[in-house]
Amino acid sequence: MGPGPSDVDPRVLEAMARPTIGHLDPLFVDMMDELKGMLQYAFRTRNALTLPISAPGSAGMETAFVNLVEPGDTVIVCQNGVFGGRMKENVERCGATPVMVEDEWGKPVDPQKLEDALKAHPEARTVAFVQAETSTGAESDTRTLVEIAHRHDCLAIVDTVTALGGTPIETDAWGIDAVYSGSQKCLSCTPGLSPVSFSEAAIARIRNRKTKVQSWFLDLNLVMGYWGEGAKRAYHHTAPINALYGLHESLVLLQEEGLENAWARHRRNHEALRDGLEAMGLSFVVAPEHRLPQLNAVRVPEGVDEATVRSALLSDYSIEIGAGLGPLAGRIWRIGLMGYASNPRNVYLLLSALEAILAAQGYALPRGAAVDAARAAYASGNENLKTAANG
Amino acid sequence: MGPGPSDVDPRVLEAMARPTIGHLDPLFVDMMDELKGMLQYAFRTRNALTLPISAPGSAGMETAFVNLVEPGDTVIVCQNGVFGGRMKENVERCGATPVMVEDEWGKPVDPQKLEDALKAHPEARTVAFVQAETSTGAESDTRTLVEIAHRHDCLAIVDTVTALGGTPIETDAWGIDAVYSGSQKCLSCTPGLSPVSFSEAAIARIRNRKTKVQSWFLDLNLVMGYWGEGAKRAYHHTAPINALYGLHESLVLLQEEGLENAWARHRRNHEALRDGLEAMGLSFVVAPEHRLPQLNAVRVPEGVDEATVRSALLSDYSIEIGAGLGPLAGRIWRIGLMGYASNPRNVYLLLSALEAILAAQGYALPRGAAVDAARAAYASGNENLKTAANG
Repeated sequence: MGPGPSDVDPRVLEAMARPTIGHLDPLFVDMMDELKGMLQYAFRTRNALTLPISAPGSAGMETAFVNLVEPGDTVIVCQNGVFGGRMKENVERCGATPVMVEDEWGKPVDPQKLEDALKAHPEARTVAFVQAETSTGAESDTRTLVEIAHRHDCLAIVDTVTALGGTPIETDAWGIDAVYSGSQKCLSCTPGLSPVSFSEAAIARIRNRKTKVQSWFLDLNLVMGYWGEGAKRAYHHTAPINALYGLHESLVLLQEEGLENAWARHRRNHEALRDGLEAMGLSFVVAPEHRLPQLNAVRVPEGVDEATVRSALLSDYSIEIGAGLGPLAGRIWRIGLMGYASNPRNVYLLLSALEAILAAQGYALPRGAAVDAARAAYASGNENLKTAANG
Repeated sequence: MGPGPSDVDPRVLEAMARPTIGHLDPLFVDMMDELKGMLQYAFRTRNALTLPISAPGSAGMETAFVNLVEPGDTVIVCQNGVFGGRMKENVERCGATPVMVEDEWGKPVDPQKLEDALKAHPEARTVAFVQAETSTGAESDTRTLVEIAHRHDCLAIVDTVTALGGTPIETDAWGIDAVYSGSQKCLSCTPGLSPVSFSEAAIARIRNRKTKVQSWFLDLNLVMGYWGEGAKRAYHHTAPINALYGLHESLVLLQEEGLENAWARHRRNHEALRDGLEAMGLSFVVAPEHRLPQLNAVRVPEGVDEATVRSALLSDYSIEIGAGLGPLAGRIWRIGLMGYASNPRNVYLLLSALEAILAAQGYALPRGAAVDAARAAYASGNENLKTAANG
């Protein structure tokens, strides 16, 4: 129940243990086509260039930057948490100039600041931001930010590592040019893969580059030869076969549930957790309208040692929650309700455990209030209480 | 039985299906320490900077180049197959100049040519070559090539993707500065991870770079913060937890067998396969003294359609063997006996199957001769025939 990796569905784990076959085996090539189709479903896109990068989300981020950015470019990078900072690093390492649009950690990206930066930098060709900041739990308004980027003739790179499967992403309807995610958050797969999708405009830019992509491993001109259309696949690198079995199964699970149902489930469990945490007297870092349901950042109460609480949760309850990062280190907890782990059982367990640990630390609160509040939230949501209670 | 991925030991598959825990969980951090120790065992090194890169072998290669090479450098790249060409790509994408030392595909790297290139290019700082060319099955003399590189004040990057666990690598004794491999060959793990090891001299160069490493994801200055000594681990990227469970188990298996015993097993099964293939009238691409036991490249006989034979092996016997690449495309087969797949059962199965398929194509050969020759090889090797026959 941290900021990811989240719990993995047993069906995904079983799939990963199937015998390894070759990366050019006709059966595997068929599975690649299915993976592409299911990733298009998850990203809500018809982009032909939709595939999983054979490495974690950070490599997905790097794929977007090294392919779309050339030396000398200006890139507007919006930062409201850790991952905007990582984007800046990527831009610099591509030999380009990042122009930073800074917002407070815990706040969404301010569209007006982006607009101002684009007016001040008409030479910019690319805008990059994080839809779902894993370091704070804040969600930015992708539709609006992409629209502003396009109005200034920029392509938009959007980080959806923590978003995909948990909260709406409309790649085509919002016109996102490059989107990347991770397997280990709301998809309930193991960490190690990064689903990505690129628009036609992004592909055109990649095809028309003046310089070679600086990474051979992440060069989409080459990766496309393996993940492209048709039965003919050119060997690029050896695909992580078993990890892809797992991702495939996690996407089958997502299709079985339905994407909108998955969003609704994340929302419902968030609301119950939120009511429980607030009944305990805890407060959220992010304003209600910008809160990600899958990642709940709450302030550590005065006088409570946050590391001791996390240790007790891990050792006594086998629950991992996340610490704060950067300016929020020591000041917040990050409680994930992602994918398979987003269920009432976890909500009740976390609330009960946290209540007991805080009480042991002398933090006064009425015992049982948190669980009651969560239960009431499920009931008021007109949900099947029996299902909720049984997890 | 192709050039990899090889068959994965069931114990490795089981390990991969264990529940995912966090990348900063104390139990996982302990496992990272064990992984490092077992990789040091496999590479025969005490290098502190020994770890698995969270992506396939191609990313391990890129890790070596982006960390050790700076723009403007001259790098001597020895090419005698596909992977020397990939090294050249890496050098160029680092903004450096590759000086190519070319040898015929199927031949080892010629030490005299390397010596000549280093004399002609005293400005070179790095030498790179492939110990075990996966595209041809040829092995180069790493000890001699590294010694020449050091005599000319160069660091040596050595590709051991197909070598590790199957054939001797003496990282410390031979003085290799940067070595990388893959999980999916003689380690019998699934594809997706790249074990690497860097010497003190290599670390000193990385620490003293004038420019930042162009890849954020592969920057060892950052990766070291997560994989370094002690209990304090700085988050860099989310490690591929379950893939690392698998690698851990594959290294436990290697330790149980013993590295020297694993080398001997690969040698023994190669000799049986070789005698069988030669009894069938097939000839090897590589001269005996430079042949890798784990990868057997043989010429396609006149008048035989090589793709039809591979298809029949796959569809009728569930055996995958590799095709030729580059100038050897259509002219050779690559038969792997790697890791878990290097056993007498596979030797007998492949020989029987190939014999039957070639006979069906009208290629005349005495039926049963191949299997008899393999059996004789096992017997003459003073091996336990019972074990050999039972696989």
